[in-house]
Amino acid sequence: MIMQPMEHIMLDQPIDDVSSTTIHSSQLRSIIERIERLEEEKKEVAEQIKEVYAEAKGNGFDSKILRKVISLRKKSAEDRSEEEAMLDLYLQALGMLSS
Amino acid sequence: MIMQPMEHIMLDQPIDDVSSTTIHSSQLRSIIERIERLEEEKKEVAEQIKEVYAEAKGNGFDSKILRKVISLRKKSAEDRSEEEAMLDLYLQALGMLSS
Repeated sequence: MIMQPMEHIMLDQPIDDVSSTTIHSSQLRSIIERIERLEEEKKEVAEQIKEVYAEAKGNGFDSKILRKVISLRKKSAEDRSEEEAMLDLYLQALGMLSS
Repeated sequence: MIMQPMEHIMLDQPIDDVSSTTIHSSQLRSIIERIERLEEEKKEVAEQIKEVYAEAKGNGFDSKILRKVISLRKKSAEDRSEEEAMLDLYLQALGMLSS
């Protein structure tokens, strides 16, 4: 697919009238390529995260518990204990905890 | 929160019997910190992607169409035309296209 950059000037304002849109091809191409590079980078980091979990699993760690730990570490001790108290309350209301 | 690394030896095999689990704290801490660093990295890349879209929007590009372009560029010309033909077929069946 061959695309030739057009030398049109891009409008500075957002465009409401599609028919009047002038696309600056080289600017568009640069935007698309920047996004694609960043998406690629994000994918690679996600792969690396998967690899750490796989390695941890190989060493006997449980991925589900690791994810739970990661999530708990984002919260303050106060938030954690509040949530735990609320969870206990709900479980008790459902008869899932001995009161 | 103070955690002291334990000098227990980690089992090489996945553990089925929780009661016999011995956790190697320093290994666990290293895993958690690696994941957290990578998650942080992923978040930063996601932020950068958002910024490119915001910048593009400021220059008059439509984010939704940009996302569509990114998605189309992942597919071969053949796949794209096959999908388009199938879409047309469905739309025609629904009376959404003049036949």
